[in-house]
Amino acid sequence: MSLRIGVLGGGQLGRMMALAGYPLGLSFSFFDKAADCPSAALGERFGDADYSDESLQAFIDSADVFTYEFENIPTRWVEAIAARKPVYPGVKSLAVSQNRLNEKRLFAELNIPSARYAEIRSEDDLRRAVSDLGLPLVVKTVTEGYDGKGQFLLRDAEQAAACWAALGASAPLIAEEFIQFKRELSIIAVRGQSGETKFYPLAENHHNHGILSHSIVPAPLLDENTQLTAERYISSILHELGHVGVLTLELFETRHGLLANETAPRVHNSGHWSIEGAHCSQFENHVRAVAGLPLGSTRAEKPSAMINIIGRHPASADVLRVTDAHLHLYGKTEREGRKLGHITVTADSYPELEMRISRLADALPNPMALHLSR
Amino acid sequence: MSLRIGVLGGGQLGRMMALAGYPLGLSFSFFDKAADCPSAALGERFGDADYSDESLQAFIDSADVFTYEFENIPTRWVEAIAARKPVYPGVKSLAVSQNRLNEKRLFAELNIPSARYAEIRSEDDLRRAVSDLGLPLVVKTVTEGYDGKGQFLLRDAEQAAACWAALGASAPLIAEEFIQFKRELSIIAVRGQSGETKFYPLAENHHNHGILSHSIVPAPLLDENTQLTAERYISSILHELGHVGVLTLELFETRHGLLANETAPRVHNSGHWSIEGAHCSQFENHVRAVAGLPLGSTRAEKPSAMINIIGRHPASADVLRVTDAHLHLYGKTEREGRKLGHITVTADSYPELEMRISRLADALPNPMALHLSR
Repeated sequence: MSLRIGVLGGGQLGRMMALAGYPLGLSFSFFDKAADCPSAALGERFGDADYSDESLQAFIDSADVFTYEFENIPTRWVEAIAARKPVYPGVKSLAVSQNRLNEKRLFAELNIPSARYAEIRSEDDLRRAVSDLGLPLVVKTVTEGYDGKGQFLLRDAEQAAACWAALGASAPLIAEEFIQFKRELSIIAVRGQSGETKFYPLAENHHNHGILSHSIVPAPLLDENTQLTAERYISSILHELGHVGVLTLELFETRHGLLANETAPRVHNSGHWSIEGAHCSQFENHVRAVAGLPLGSTRAEKPSAMINIIGRHPASADVLRVTDAHLHLYGKTEREGRKLGHITVTADSYPELEMRISRLADALPNPMALHLSR
Repeated sequence: MSLRIGVLGGGQLGRMMALAGYPLGLSFSFFDKAADCPSAALGERFGDADYSDESLQAFIDSADVFTYEFENIPTRWVEAIAARKPVYPGVKSLAVSQNRLNEKRLFAELNIPSARYAEIRSEDDLRRAVSDLGLPLVVKTVTEGYDGKGQFLLRDAEQAAACWAALGASAPLIAEEFIQFKRELSIIAVRGQSGETKFYPLAENHHNHGILSHSIVPAPLLDENTQLTAERYISSILHELGHVGVLTLELFETRHGLLANETAPRVHNSGHWSIEGAHCSQFENHVRAVAGLPLGSTRAEKPSAMINIIGRHPASADVLRVTDAHLHLYGKTEREGRKLGHITVTADSYPELEMRISRLADALPNPMALHLSR
């Protein structure tokens, strides 16, 4: 009844998990050293300045079952929890998503198409990758990196030295062939402790300087086969990992079909629309899975858009005046490039949705990629 | 941006206001002496054992704008707030709903039909009321009283002495003619600081021993005229009171049309369905109004049912296994007659809704009035 969930991290994802979990009678602890983190008001916070072992153990004492809202966390934290109490998703899910090479190997094992790649341990490896995979070449760190950080786009073999200078310290790296994609899609799925699995409709994602600007869900002009293919891919990953909780798979839609890009073992920015747009949100389904409860319907009755608020806050009233717009602020201070909140808007049709998005773009100090013609 | 709302009371209504308000970037203080009150985890709690003036002033210091989640609060609290900071709904709304005679006079002024009544200050007044209004007669305290408490159903003139013995100490009382109603309905409306007003669809309410068992929304088999009449009545009340926030009007549907029963200057149990069933819930619209923000749509796309969990908790999994059922627990311990939570379930049609209600009735230890045939 009064099960408590411990969340590694206290950002907006933890905050939205808690907002979804309280109605289920759950309570929350967070492990985050920032006293003003977005989740701070919604549970008990643990974690001192250097994330000492004492503070980690106190956090583990405080809750019954654990999860995380960010995959780039020290594996030792998750192992310390797993030694004493259940943690979902498990260490295997984390190990795959923390390492792009592991992820690529998993895609290959499961016959999930993905960009060709090479492991890079030297500048020579880089030159070899250019001749094997062609140009341009996307070079990334194997661990860490998100929102476009830790990446280098190699357009010319001459840039190999510059690329190595920029990223070589983080080697091994991964070099991937450059994919000419029609658009980026993502699929979010959830798997319960009993193995029950549900899929949200594919989201179409638009970026601006590497940061997600907005998502349209269900992705427009999608044939049913694409949704089913994406479900088959993510389903095989969920099953292989014995994953419990939400998992996200980012995909490229290309002329030759879907290519898997990367996974995130958690609720995802491209799924925030589900709070209003689906019967049961990704946050509620994640906490249901972690708490061992039956999953809710992932059905969407209408098109939705999720629009990120980046860097500067709009006037709340300007947002809420737009029909069926919902505002989600994370309680953060303004800073360039920072995710401060998001807006969900739903409509009865895509053209109506586009009109509402356009009105919201006018209300935002930083309209990101919203003004790009579709 | 970081506006804080102070709520008098820390029960489930305050809890659900807070859950709706955090996404809008609001934070919350509660004035409730119970350290384990349902709102405690969702904001800063004030109020010592005897609700001292010091604790009230500290509460007033802590927030920017105020509201309440229960109308039976000392008027001096609201006056103390109003002397320093804005409080919505205002003192006028509170004065009407706290006193059944004031309420009856307001209905009369605004030409809102209501049961005939008499003010009762003595046992003789009671006998006179029997001859004027007929039998049975519903005798109520003028102030306090909810969930059927503080009421006496006088079936026989002989019971006048017993009735006076039971309630006389709380005189003045009010005696109302007994209404043969087809069903009880309620309408919930919200008015913003700009005067903008929105109405939720009428709810059909079912009681069990004076406690709300469940509500069906929109009330089935309703002609449009009834909805519009109810909107006209509540609209005139909102306007007359200069009300800001949610207001509820309970009504009887009779052979001769709608009769107003009573008002509540707050979010209402019969409106809990709106969290999932309406575009913008009564809780979000209430906090939007209190925060001076534009209101959200009160539209319901499908039939919903709200089912109270009274006295004993069901197994959460049994509830969540029912398609499109959502669970809302308040963090309270079990006690006979206590509202511990509610369930919302939606469906595409009323027959499908009935089937889901019937499955939920099976999951509840105390199915209240759910097994009554409709």
